[in-house]
Amino acid sequence: MPIKFFLHEDEIPRQWYNIAADMPTPMQPPLHPGTGQPVGPQDLAPVFPMNLIEQEVSQERWIDIPDEVLDKLLLWRPTPLYRAEKLEKFLNCPVKIYYKNEGVSPAGSHKPNTAIPQVYYNKVFGIKRIATETGAGQWGSALSFACNQFGLEAKVYMVRVSYEQKPYRRLMMNTWGGTCIPSPSTETEAGRKILAMDPNSPGSLGIAISEAVEDAVTSEAMGRPPTRYSLGSVLNHVMLHQTIIGLEAQKQLAMAGDYPDIVIGCAGGGSNFAGCAFPFIRDKIAGKKIDIIAVEPASCPTMTKGVFTYDFGDTVQMTPLLPMHTLGHSFVPEPIHAGGLRYHGMAPLVSQLVLDGLIEPRAVRQLETFAAGVTWARTEGFISAPETCHALAAVFQEAQKAKEEGREKTILVNWSGHGLVDLAAYDAYFQGKLFDYELPQEAIQEALKALDGFPKPALG
Amino acid sequence: MPIKFFLHEDEIPRQWYNIAADMPTPMQPPLHPGTGQPVGPQDLAPVFPMNLIEQEVSQERWIDIPDEVLDKLLLWRPTPLYRAEKLEKFLNCPVKIYYKNEGVSPAGSHKPNTAIPQVYYNKVFGIKRIATETGAGQWGSALSFACNQFGLEAKVYMVRVSYEQKPYRRLMMNTWGGTCIPSPSTETEAGRKILAMDPNSPGSLGIAISEAVEDAVTSEAMGRPPTRYSLGSVLNHVMLHQTIIGLEAQKQLAMAGDYPDIVIGCAGGGSNFAGCAFPFIRDKIAGKKIDIIAVEPASCPTMTKGVFTYDFGDTVQMTPLLPMHTLGHSFVPEPIHAGGLRYHGMAPLVSQLVLDGLIEPRAVRQLETFAAGVTWARTEGFISAPETCHALAAVFQEAQKAKEEGREKTILVNWSGHGLVDLAAYDAYFQGKLFDYELPQEAIQEALKALDGFPKPALG
Repeated sequence: MPIKFFLHEDEIPRQWYNIAADMPTPMQPPLHPGTGQPVGPQDLAPVFPMNLIEQEVSQERWIDIPDEVLDKLLLWRPTPLYRAEKLEKFLNCPVKIYYKNEGVSPAGSHKPNTAIPQVYYNKVFGIKRIATETGAGQWGSALSFACNQFGLEAKVYMVRVSYEQKPYRRLMMNTWGGTCIPSPSTETEAGRKILAMDPNSPGSLGIAISEAVEDAVTSEAMGRPPTRYSLGSVLNHVMLHQTIIGLEAQKQLAMAGDYPDIVIGCAGGGSNFAGCAFPFIRDKIAGKKIDIIAVEPASCPTMTKGVFTYDFGDTVQMTPLLPMHTLGHSFVPEPIHAGGLRYHGMAPLVSQLVLDGLIEPRAVRQLETFAAGVTWARTEGFISAPETCHALAAVFQEAQKAKEEGREKTILVNWSGHGLVDLAAYDAYFQGKLFDYELPQEAIQEALKALDGFPKPALG
Repeated sequence: MPIKFFLHEDEIPRQWYNIAADMPTPMQPPLHPGTGQPVGPQDLAPVFPMNLIEQEVSQERWIDIPDEVLDKLLLWRPTPLYRAEKLEKFLNCPVKIYYKNEGVSPAGSHKPNTAIPQVYYNKVFGIKRIATETGAGQWGSALSFACNQFGLEAKVYMVRVSYEQKPYRRLMMNTWGGTCIPSPSTETEAGRKILAMDPNSPGSLGIAISEAVEDAVTSEAMGRPPTRYSLGSVLNHVMLHQTIIGLEAQKQLAMAGDYPDIVIGCAGGGSNFAGCAFPFIRDKIAGKKIDIIAVEPASCPTMTKGVFTYDFGDTVQMTPLLPMHTLGHSFVPEPIHAGGLRYHGMAPLVSQLVLDGLIEPRAVRQLETFAAGVTWARTEGFISAPETCHALAAVFQEAQKAKEEGREKTILVNWSGHGLVDLAAYDAYFQGKLFDYELPQEAIQEALKALDGFPKPALG
């Protein structure tokens, strides 16, 4: 029995799956931050190109992947599906474990799956330059790679503390020709304001988003090439682009003659989780019995301890209000090492599916995630990104549970990226410098006060 | 036409190719450093397990790959063969370019191809612990990974300056459970001697080899578990294990309906080059017209400016004398960033084939290699190791030559590893801190004086 399942290039999915067409509860619309009314496409036009806005609100179940996008995705896709046979032997539980290896992309994670189409649609719309923010750098490097492939400029505002402490992903951006500057910067009004208050500001994702959005919407007036903003998670079209993961996995599992009882992914903004899980949730809605688990850090428990309500995507209240699970837009997570999971909100699509009982959210603690990552490296060989280690921790929990229940289970986990440029986090773990942090209930109550007075979405 | 060619797991080669069986000129034997007489297996027994020594001197053309080795290699093998279609378009030359992607291994390079079988044979022989040296860390991390897979201890002596400046590969070793200490260390006689002379010694590969060999041969007396030494390049059995690269590539090129006019690899000790090239050299010996190019740095021009003679593998004259191209065992290369290519000697098998005119050696300058690496990243997407960039520079030269000659050519290059933990080198390049360095003739003459008085092998 093989342990790796490859699809031929001509077997790559040619359409993305849009779960909006199958949602048991219709999605609530985003609201305009000024008027409180649903935002229309024109409200978003200064920020995103219209073809992506159309995708954001589409109700079509299947959306064609353009040939120009497929051509670029083929640089690393279809990605292999692996059977984690060596881990199975080590765990000695009645489980079969499959993982989808998204670490084989040039940027080392699932992020290019949406960076490539986003840049393509911008290019088609006549855009020459894209501004974005990045935390640890996964998204900024993926967008720089994609912009380079299509000949667009990339401008990345990187949270200053990460810019200084994590030079490797910045260097990846440079290698692909992207421009990366620390945020807050002196190049935007928002950045200058923050620096005036605190010249040593370490920055935050919220500030960086504000800078990137401002960069995009002021570019015309500033005489820069036509520019739009791009976001690497949370939004509907991002989830859509990532579904290629799960669609490939379904074909590969069929090759293996298998189907999962449990699908697991880590969730920060939700995109790698959604990408793998949504095609299986379609099966679940159609009656298939399957557990879908979204794993978040106990230090940033958006789905398990946050509330479902309208909130801003950024800290400084520039974005539309989105209906989602949130800890409040002013929430600042503890500096755990899984930078990609430190976000106050959750994708509206994922949030609604949690409400509808189709997704089980689960919070795991930091030390458990690194323990899982080390065991993974010492069995399967590959070193996992700290974000991915959260999903692995849940795999171990489910394997143990299967043993206790004496039931055979098949698990699919989305291995969202490798950890080769995150090794300092493993070092801190080995040196005993990491600790478990569970967000206290009082801190959550305090953070949620920022939401007082905002509209509340109706509960499914 | 696909751009990626995958073999099924059951198509993986089941035998290594031993070029010793087909050499037009028989190999000269290694000599004992004390007696000057050919070394026998027993002379090497304290250093290597006897089953590997037998492989080192074998004349069998095909050597079976044990099932236990195949089982581990399947974690990442067969590796994909890519058509570099986007680079071809960019170069606009009459060439088809294929590359074998060895960066998909857990350690990110070709090194585990030999680490896995070496550890396996040690284990079968009853060895519990392996000592080795490493420069930039590619080999040390691969050996740590392999030891972990088979449950042996790994002890890595890492050149101190790299240990301090390049923490990421050390952290990979730790993640796989290996022990890595800076060399010179206080744990060996050799290390203590060096430190007594210079407490701030930055170390060298030569010193680290001495420490690792001493560790192995003194382990029994010191009460450590049974220990042997392991080397990641240069030796015959290392080249043998790497031939799986070229054997897979031959099958994959057949899938593509193609055969190369030119095969290119970078060569430090020679193992990734040999692994890809030797199966094609077999075809060349049988009459096929094919150019085989081994690329080395102009700053360490072992094959192009060194001499073919008996020399030590290490600086402190502990190893047997090997018949090879060398700049002299006391030669210290300039600190260019391709750590894996900074070696004074060259694999005896590669050296003999250069002498026999079957391999064309070529030296390239540093800036040209990084320029090639950046163009590669901006077309094919993947970021290459600095060593690999040397091979890419030769690909670009051959493409240009084909254009000038107006002839269509098919090129195969061994993409030996990714550069994700070498990004500081790219940064130095972008900042203009790197420069070209060509070793002056006088320096070579001076270095070669160290060889006065040693036996000279007969020339082919």
